[in-house]
Amino acid sequence: MSQHIVVIGAVALGPKAAARFKRLEPGSKVTMVDKTDSISYGGCGIPYYVSGDVSEPMQLRTTSFHMVRDETFFKETKDVDVIPLTEAIAVDREAKKVTLRHVKTGEETILDYDKLVMATGASPRHLNLPGEELDGVHYVSNLYDAVQIREAVTKGLVEKAVIVGAGFIGLEMAEAFADMWGIDTTVIEIADQIMPRYVSPALAVMGRHHMEEKGISFQLGQVVKELKGDGRVSRVVTNKGEYDADVVVISAGVIPNSDLAKSCGLAVSDRGGIQVNERMQTSDPDIYSGGDCVEITNQITGKPFYLPMGSMANRQGRVIGTNLAGGNATFTGAIGSFVVKLFEQSLAGAGLSLATAKDLGYDAMSVLLVQLDRAHFYPTKQLMTLELVVDKPSRRILGIQGLGSYGDAMVGRINAVSALLPHKPTTADISNMEMAYSPPFSAAMDILNTLGNMADNALDGRNRGIGPAEFEKLWHERKNGELFFLDCREEPDARPFLERHKNWHNIPQGKIYERLAEIPTDRTIVLVCNTGARSYEAQIMLDHKGVTNVINLHGGMAALKKWGMDI
Amino acid sequence: MSQHIVVIGAVALGPKAAARFKRLEPGSKVTMVDKTDSISYGGCGIPYYVSGDVSEPMQLRTTSFHMVRDETFFKETKDVDVIPLTEAIAVDREAKKVTLRHVKTGEETILDYDKLVMATGASPRHLNLPGEELDGVHYVSNLYDAVQIREAVTKGLVEKAVIVGAGFIGLEMAEAFADMWGIDTTVIEIADQIMPRYVSPALAVMGRHHMEEKGISFQLGQVVKELKGDGRVSRVVTNKGEYDADVVVISAGVIPNSDLAKSCGLAVSDRGGIQVNERMQTSDPDIYSGGDCVEITNQITGKPFYLPMGSMANRQGRVIGTNLAGGNATFTGAIGSFVVKLFEQSLAGAGLSLATAKDLGYDAMSVLLVQLDRAHFYPTKQLMTLELVVDKPSRRILGIQGLGSYGDAMVGRINAVSALLPHKPTTADISNMEMAYSPPFSAAMDILNTLGNMADNALDGRNRGIGPAEFEKLWHERKNGELFFLDCREEPDARPFLERHKNWHNIPQGKIYERLAEIPTDRTIVLVCNTGARSYEAQIMLDHKGVTNVINLHGGMAALKKWGMDI
Repeated sequence: MSQHIVVIGAVALGPKAAARFKRLEPGSKVTMVDKTDSISYGGCGIPYYVSGDVSEPMQLRTTSFHMVRDETFFKETKDVDVIPLTEAIAVDREAKKVTLRHVKTGEETILDYDKLVMATGASPRHLNLPGEELDGVHYVSNLYDAVQIREAVTKGLVEKAVIVGAGFIGLEMAEAFADMWGIDTTVIEIADQIMPRYVSPALAVMGRHHMEEKGISFQLGQVVKELKGDGRVSRVVTNKGEYDADVVVISAGVIPNSDLAKSCGLAVSDRGGIQVNERMQTSDPDIYSGGDCVEITNQITGKPFYLPMGSMANRQGRVIGTNLAGGNATFTGAIGSFVVKLFEQSLAGAGLSLATAKDLGYDAMSVLLVQLDRAHFYPTKQLMTLELVVDKPSRRILGIQGLGSYGDAMVGRINAVSALLPHKPTTADISNMEMAYSPPFSAAMDILNTLGNMADNALDGRNRGIGPAEFEKLWHERKNGELFFLDCREEPDARPFLERHKNWHNIPQGKIYERLAEIPTDRTIVLVCNTGARSYEAQIMLDHKGVTNVINLHGGMAALKKWGMDI
Repeated sequence: MSQHIVVIGAVALGPKAAARFKRLEPGSKVTMVDKTDSISYGGCGIPYYVSGDVSEPMQLRTTSFHMVRDETFFKETKDVDVIPLTEAIAVDREAKKVTLRHVKTGEETILDYDKLVMATGASPRHLNLPGEELDGVHYVSNLYDAVQIREAVTKGLVEKAVIVGAGFIGLEMAEAFADMWGIDTTVIEIADQIMPRYVSPALAVMGRHHMEEKGISFQLGQVVKELKGDGRVSRVVTNKGEYDADVVVISAGVIPNSDLAKSCGLAVSDRGGIQVNERMQTSDPDIYSGGDCVEITNQITGKPFYLPMGSMANRQGRVIGTNLAGGNATFTGAIGSFVVKLFEQSLAGAGLSLATAKDLGYDAMSVLLVQLDRAHFYPTKQLMTLELVVDKPSRRILGIQGLGSYGDAMVGRINAVSALLPHKPTTADISNMEMAYSPPFSAAMDILNTLGNMADNALDGRNRGIGPAEFEKLWHERKNGELFFLDCREEPDARPFLERHKNWHNIPQGKIYERLAEIPTDRTIVLVCNTGARSYEAQIMLDHKGVTNVINLHGGMAALKKWGMDI
């Protein structure tokens, strides 16, 4: 049976579904239409084109074997017909007809289809600000914007850049401006942290601190009110200040393009995401959809969520291609894993952050661990910070986030846990995760295993600790004599702090039993060591001796340093 | 209830079990005995000490905060009593007494125990060769050997080194000799490949080829018969040749130390591994065991296997510590994941290799994929080779192996699949694995996803291919006109081969339909492209046109290059 498949949208999901289908049914016909004439580009590469890592915009449209994925490419190598500069404006589901309109000529045509794929993608969220139409104001949404930004940069027109939004794209663009071009870059974010909802305040501060060291300025908790300029943008006005800008990049998220779906009566969520089942069928079984215009199932919560990422689109595209050809492939949802490169670090995660988990009603807690990412004696070792989010009653893992050195060590840990998350692991499963072991790659007890152990000990009430944020608060708000800061490292490590602070005390962890009499019982003891491991041992010893009014600084001095606290 | 725990063996598992137990029951007493006085060292670091990456042997005995893990350390920081230079020679399980003997004085003492931990480890397999006792012949089993080897190297006494055994340790030692000290290094292996049983011949050749480029010589399929020398070793004699050697390192695996367990009647397998349940209890519930002296459950096969690794020992140690304190922790087995650094590459895997799977009776197949490890437009991209081993009837994943650039990208992919393997994933689960996506870290369709897709297509008979080994055979054994080698890349890529070989033909994949008449139907077509992706598309097109006597080179020219074949 020969079919005619019409695919609306030719970036990521559309081409993938079309090509997969044609490999399964070479005798059937596929027509793919797109509003633009720059089809099948890798939009996620835009920040790397702006930075200059990618030299030509065409590199974002080529295959790994250097062929441009244009209409001819699709016709010759995939036998897929592409109609560019053409919008689908109506779908008659009864008659199985789609109405197309050429975006330049306005000419309308009607195509019959057997099955339809809606791959309409998403659009950047506009802020509807006065001045948003000025030259030099961009969204990171297509190659045209990317080329314009890079042109302005290479012509030396950009001394100051302002990024609105401190999510993935905003941070990637900030790095692109500052790292490669030395542009004075300011990031403005409405929330009081970078990567809101994705990582905890603690990890956000650590990541921001690293970016600030590289010269990026952050203005958090500010709402942009207006963009000013005479033809070209020159200033950004917020509720708290004004910032010079030769270029403004707005990265405030994206909105699914679901108007066509709505107009033909397909089920669309309140948020605007097209609703699909596990086979990626919409409420009309002959219409499939996927990519940035759909909602999928969150495999942690079991509820729908919106995850507009190129990786989702590609995998969903293959599922659709298989099912168009009569197969029964499923896409069961996603964990929501992510990674973003921040100069020499990477921030990554999977599942829910603590704040999101609590918002969703979980009785959740998290632990923060700072540890080396490979054998402590191996020369390339680096400190990694991980946070594990756990549902207290069930000990189920809800999420993991972390900040590590640039490279694949951080994302490798996240991907391993991500693979496990759909199987509802508990802390014991993380304690026992099998990480391939060799000193250049991991410690005998990998940081992930220690993280599981730490969560286990925290849930059992054995490891009672605080993160750097709470420590900073305690430190600054302490009244004389109210808290007893006990540094349980060896004396040479503690000495500089003893000299600087009256309230700082030192008993090496191994001498706790011997010097127990020096520890007061009428005050809260705050235990400190390098990473929180020895202070945990000290806490156990004090518990054993009945000194239980004790708090342990998770992540130790290493966490404070990454956090940017200087004590 | 206060207990007395006796731990026999103070490396890896013993100390971990002791420390964990003491954190849970600080009021109980732990006595840990060891034959040697160099307790709690990181044996896996020995190759890196020999290479000089680790400057002092003591670094293998320190914590990450630079404290030496000696008797005083264990007493002060863990409240564990250590008795060094003392062997446990008998256990009276009825009376719960263990007899100790000082290895120097011979003095015997008897200790009462409530519970016992046997952490007796393993010993290097000796080959019982004439000359094995000569100076300069070493096993990589303890710090003493390591110090001797490094001393000889730094004194300039070693111009030529011979390694016997091309497993992990052998390859790590070969790199240590050659890379850091420029020593002329030969590896002799009884099997006809490196890493036998762990990786396929294809991956083994690729890894060996890389090491040969770095100057290592390999003598495969050879049995060492004798070591010659006058006091100090000078030559290694095999069944096929003789090799000069100033130092010989024998790395022929290890044997569990289970004599004590046998002598007191505990269940020990035919291979000599102490048998334990999931709680790490031996056949006597008051005696626990773990680490290099036990057998554990293989989570792929469900059968016992032997996996002597420091990572296993550490995690099992924690389980034992918990259970000694009345807890109910379990160690459910292992997948058998591994990684080894080979100069600028890493070879890694999890689960079964194809050969092992077939030996165990699985109706298994594998696919080989060569692809970039991140977005093809991102500058730090590298080619990675992955092999997926699949049970044909069930599509269940039995194992994965790969060779990638040094760094954490390769091991990250293996760890992600390893996390999934206990849950019995199929090819569809690999196709849909969620890898955190951002161009500096992965492609939108990650290499793992493509690997799952490729296996799926191979199982469905759509992608019918061969690896570089079979291709080489076809190439060398081809008779004139018997095979039609069809290069389906663009003409400039194919040109050098067209000029060199009469039997080489070129039709770009996108021109197959157009130029179908040029393709003979009376001969086998061998399709070739860069990595196997375009040749797969070409195969589909030919199938569609009824040309089905077609073989696709998996991994393409990239695989041939890594394999070292020059055509």
